[in-house]
Amino acid sequence: MNIAIVGLGLIGGSLARDLKSQINVKVIGVDANEAHQQMAVELGLVDEMVTLDRAIRQSQVIVLAIPVDAIEKLLPELLNMIGDDQVITDVGSTKEFICQSVENHPRRSRYVAAHPLAGTEYSGPKAAISHLFVGKKNIICEKEKSAEDALDLVERIFRSVGLTNLYMQPSDHDKHLAYVSHLSHVSSFMLGMTVLDIEKDESQIFNLASTGFASTVRLAKSNPKTWSAIFAKNNEHLSTALGSYINYLQKFKKAIDDKDLLMTEALMIEANDIKKILS
Amino acid sequence: MNIAIVGLGLIGGSLARDLKSQINVKVIGVDANEAHQQMAVELGLVDEMVTLDRAIRQSQVIVLAIPVDAIEKLLPELLNMIGDDQVITDVGSTKEFICQSVENHPRRSRYVAAHPLAGTEYSGPKAAISHLFVGKKNIICEKEKSAEDALDLVERIFRSVGLTNLYMQPSDHDKHLAYVSHLSHVSSFMLGMTVLDIEKDESQIFNLASTGFASTVRLAKSNPKTWSAIFAKNNEHLSTALGSYINYLQKFKKAIDDKDLLMTEALMIEANDIKKILS
Repeated sequence: MNIAIVGLGLIGGSLARDLKSQINVKVIGVDANEAHQQMAVELGLVDEMVTLDRAIRQSQVIVLAIPVDAIEKLLPELLNMIGDDQVITDVGSTKEFICQSVENHPRRSRYVAAHPLAGTEYSGPKAAISHLFVGKKNIICEKEKSAEDALDLVERIFRSVGLTNLYMQPSDHDKHLAYVSHLSHVSSFMLGMTVLDIEKDESQIFNLASTGFASTVRLAKSNPKTWSAIFAKNNEHLSTALGSYINYLQKFKKAIDDKDLLMTEALMIEANDIKKILS
Repeated sequence: MNIAIVGLGLIGGSLARDLKSQINVKVIGVDANEAHQQMAVELGLVDEMVTLDRAIRQSQVIVLAIPVDAIEKLLPELLNMIGDDQVITDVGSTKEFICQSVENHPRRSRYVAAHPLAGTEYSGPKAAISHLFVGKKNIICEKEKSAEDALDLVERIFRSVGLTNLYMQPSDHDKHLAYVSHLSHVSSFMLGMTVLDIEKDESQIFNLASTGFASTVRLAKSNPKTWSAIFAKNNEHLSTALGSYINYLQKFKKAIDDKDLLMTEALMIEANDIKKILS
């Protein structure tokens, strides 16, 4: 089977790596960035790099692993181009706008909306790693709108790299991801900004990696282009999540300013409950 | 040499573990918590557990590894009790109030103010691990106020577990730690609260450990008692750091609400600079 991966970044590249290692799978790569095209070949992520048109003609499955705004734009066009034996899926971190973009498309059933919950703070083809998806969850949205054979094939592909498929409606997906992923990224990015302001001249003194800072700021290394698109496409849920986060921080700051130890301790004891939902 | 460790939690216990493995070191443990006394013996963290009075009489060096408010209270009393051949040091995460508590103490020179920058989100004797300090920094404050022999001995002890000693004034220490450690903890704790609010019923659906959330929220598992004391003793610097962090989050939220992609991207590009100061 020929599988086209459009976008050989962290997620597309990692998926390409795992699929290419399977018997009877040929991975065809597409990337608008010339440097990335070359890297993907050199790193052995794909069997060949071709143009988008050619990839569409040659592949049974097309995986869109480009920024969410680009998926939303490209998906309807690609659905016009494929045949009834072809399937398009994606790995975008937001699902509502993407699903809406093909809501009334006559070929909607050939698309399977997906989001594997996996990643690192690095980006580009060099960030692609093997087994990134093992033990992770893949969220499939509006499965009832996909043809049975298309859904079945896409689920098999994601399962083959170690993912477990779950089902969710796009609005629920976007709401939950705002809290468990997008908010964490904003939190990290702004923590980075705050500390950069004060610590610029101190890089020689501290080994910041040995403080709790390293893990909370890790995501601030993430790709701004990828994330600005995600935030824009999930801005309502993210704004609500951010508002709630800021409220809690203000409450905590007030307790600090009031020297209200009982309140700071009570808030932290409540937050400790996170142990229960982190498996 | 006999070294007394007062408080066999994460830091005291880890230090005990490493020191006990050295030739010619006897580690004498003290802990007010009976369950922890027993655990420390069972886990082999110490050679014996004794009372504080007996530990003081039997040890050349006394390491205070209890909450910062308890250090501040106990330190002046202990300095009254020790002889000229004995030394007290500590591992407290704030230094200004502790140093002030013995500023005019006639035995000030027998105390070395220290803070090894190491830890995990776990607490208690069971959290104690070997080699926790290898490659990390130890901040020593007001070294000019310690007797030469006392400073030399304490530095050797910390070096022997893998720490590099650095020097800083207490106010600088507290200010920097507010940004690179204490703020990260508040950020994590409040992120935990925010997500708990919305995700309480979703624990079955998501494997949160596979999202960026796990690393940003890790510190929310930390011990509320330990941290409320730290925050109380560093409340001015922490309040400033938190205020700055909240401002950045509000700026980012505004950009999200205004759908100002250029601004969100610009802020994230700036935050990416954190790569340069994280070694």
